[in-house]
Amino acid sequence: MNVEIISIGDELLIGQVINTNASWMATELNLSGFNVIKITTISDEKRSIINSIDDAFKKADIVLMTGGLGPTNDDITKYTLCDYFNSNLIFNQKSYDNIVRLFGSRGFPITELNRKQAEVPDNCKVIINNNGTAPGMWFDRGEKVLISMPGVPFEMKPMMTEYIIPELTKNNTSKIVHKTILTTGTGESFLADLIKDWEAALPQHIKLAYLPHPGVVRLRLSAYGFDKTILEEEIETHVHKLNKLIPDLIFGFNDDTLQSVIGKLLKDKNKTLATAESCTGGYIAHLITSVPGSSEYYKGSVISYSNEVKKDILKVSEETLNNYGAVSEQCVIEMAKGVIALLKTDYAIAISGIAGPDGGSDEKPVGTTWVAIANGTEVSTKKFLLGNERSRNIERASIAALNQLRKVL
Amino acid sequence: MNVEIISIGDELLIGQVINTNASWMATELNLSGFNVIKITTISDEKRSIINSIDDAFKKADIVLMTGGLGPTNDDITKYTLCDYFNSNLIFNQKSYDNIVRLFGSRGFPITELNRKQAEVPDNCKVIINNNGTAPGMWFDRGEKVLISMPGVPFEMKPMMTEYIIPELTKNNTSKIVHKTILTTGTGESFLADLIKDWEAALPQHIKLAYLPHPGVVRLRLSAYGFDKTILEEEIETHVHKLNKLIPDLIFGFNDDTLQSVIGKLLKDKNKTLATAESCTGGYIAHLITSVPGSSEYYKGSVISYSNEVKKDILKVSEETLNNYGAVSEQCVIEMAKGVIALLKTDYAIAISGIAGPDGGSDEKPVGTTWVAIANGTEVSTKKFLLGNERSRNIERASIAALNQLRKVL
Repeated sequence: MNVEIISIGDELLIGQVINTNASWMATELNLSGFNVIKITTISDEKRSIINSIDDAFKKADIVLMTGGLGPTNDDITKYTLCDYFNSNLIFNQKSYDNIVRLFGSRGFPITELNRKQAEVPDNCKVIINNNGTAPGMWFDRGEKVLISMPGVPFEMKPMMTEYIIPELTKNNTSKIVHKTILTTGTGESFLADLIKDWEAALPQHIKLAYLPHPGVVRLRLSAYGFDKTILEEEIETHVHKLNKLIPDLIFGFNDDTLQSVIGKLLKDKNKTLATAESCTGGYIAHLITSVPGSSEYYKGSVISYSNEVKKDILKVSEETLNNYGAVSEQCVIEMAKGVIALLKTDYAIAISGIAGPDGGSDEKPVGTTWVAIANGTEVSTKKFLLGNERSRNIERASIAALNQLRKVL
Repeated sequence: MNVEIISIGDELLIGQVINTNASWMATELNLSGFNVIKITTISDEKRSIINSIDDAFKKADIVLMTGGLGPTNDDITKYTLCDYFNSNLIFNQKSYDNIVRLFGSRGFPITELNRKQAEVPDNCKVIINNNGTAPGMWFDRGEKVLISMPGVPFEMKPMMTEYIIPELTKNNTSKIVHKTILTTGTGESFLADLIKDWEAALPQHIKLAYLPHPGVVRLRLSAYGFDKTILEEEIETHVHKLNKLIPDLIFGFNDDTLQSVIGKLLKDKNKTLATAESCTGGYIAHLITSVPGSSEYYKGSVISYSNEVKKDILKVSEETLNNYGAVSEQCVIEMAKGVIALLKTDYAIAISGIAGPDGGSDEKPVGTTWVAIANGTEVSTKKFLLGNERSRNIERASIAALNQLRKVL
């Protein structure tokens, strides 16, 4: 089934807001087996809305619209749809009750403008908005469908996942099963080369997509068929084969992150972690502490952005700094040992590098980064040569360091 | 002049990539006085491309396309445009020289596919791509214009800012001057209320836009006219009045960030900074060190994610932790004093709070956050009550802490 998404809003056309709604919707629709053929972004203007609907109905079976449903005068989607589908506005008690519930919980009075939000065209199905005052509207037009939703992501998303997608797929006997495999440690093209025979052996009804991010490549397998259980088994078989092929590169599945996987490993082993960061300046700590409950295993960090802090607090020796410099294997070993002793943890990550844009030399160009992973008795190290761009270097160095710890764990 | 943007790429329609190109282009065009009337996203498919161009030319004076210019078979934009404009492909020496230059610098051999990228339709102006192998193409059609660019942001953006926008505005006598005022410390609606008289007094040709972000509201003033110098003076007059009205809320202008403003203040005063973070888990350090050259004034941080680290390293007293808890005014005062002594800096930020989702109580709900700013002799503190959502709390608490330091400086 072909879908067109129409995003309405002047804020999208002046670049003030990035259209993340459309890509979120496209992802969800794609995962449920719909084919998004076009995304159109237009202004809050009657003629534009009508022209876009006419165009969309020429090719699409389903038209999904967001935006223009607010209470103020510049929001005209509802009135335009009312005209387009030759309807009259009627008061909808359920929508009004919903507004009363939302406002009551915040102690706000209900104005005439809010009351008008409970009016809907008389020939649409009303979709209750649990997180806002504007209801969604579902219009049938022969075999085709147009659905209008608010543009606020927090209101639109539950409408899509809880009602619209389930309704649209109700009579659909075909099934799709997805699994995402998370890899780190090599780039997209090298990974593709490593797994090309496995990929070529996938059956026709199982598709592979590469989803690259800085430092992480996600592989999404999608199996199409009619029996969910069989599809799930098939996916597991192929994942199992892939796991045998590149065991070192796979760190998790679906919604896992490197930091959540490390958190789980540390919790399971009942071990604690500290970090000593130089070039990443707290970003590793930020990733680790972005996981709820991380205080169970993460004790803290010393961010040593100056040599003095490396010496005075982490006890890196003067000789090391003079002879090898702050970006050296010797220095990260001493940083790791220093922070493990200071914070009394089982494991430590230490990192030092040149994030850029300045500070590079011929011997140590911008992007040179050393990582050490220590436990009570041993230290392992690794050198990375990253790129020229400061913010990407910080991100990639942090991912590389977390992955080193994961391997040790 | 009306512009339509056409973004070409299957990766946009399956939601794999968010269309940040279109919103970046919309912002730049808007700032230069163009009116973006529509953004259309379509697949790499000949019929879709042709239909979209036909539609676009009905309303737009300028059509800007991105995507589909790669060397592989799925990239068909150039061949489609060649057909559409009844042209023949010819070899372009300048584009080829550019490919040779790019590949030579990386030591790669030039394949037949790369050579084909130097072929262009014989009736377009060629736009050299300094950062990639696919040239841009400029087609005139009577008074109207269609320009095709690569979809890689890193290649498209310099083409837009260095060539396309200057060329399109060449004959334009009307001028626009913008200035963005950065505020923090209050929400959008409260701010709007505080400045409503100032806003109402703006002349017709000066427009105000609110651009809200977590913790920061940006106000963009745009003045439209024919004399740049006069417009700049007018903007400065209104900014000056606003500065008198809300001096505490304004922290910078245009591309400033809180961390860059603080960096500049510290550098000017020749002072150094340390941080002691609990709930923000390194995010403040990350923001500070995201500024190139921050090692000149930032010495480091102790991230004390456990009470032991607060006690052992930052020297927070056992009594304070027992009597008031880790999230208390007393605790952040001792953390700030502890880190300033330990890292021997002029200033310190200390922060402790409950980021959530767990750990809240009736007395201290999730979102309760204490900040202390210390210099050698004094400590000032402030309490914030933030929301329920962990990642937003970390972001907002970090912004609030940086703003406290800015006020002290």
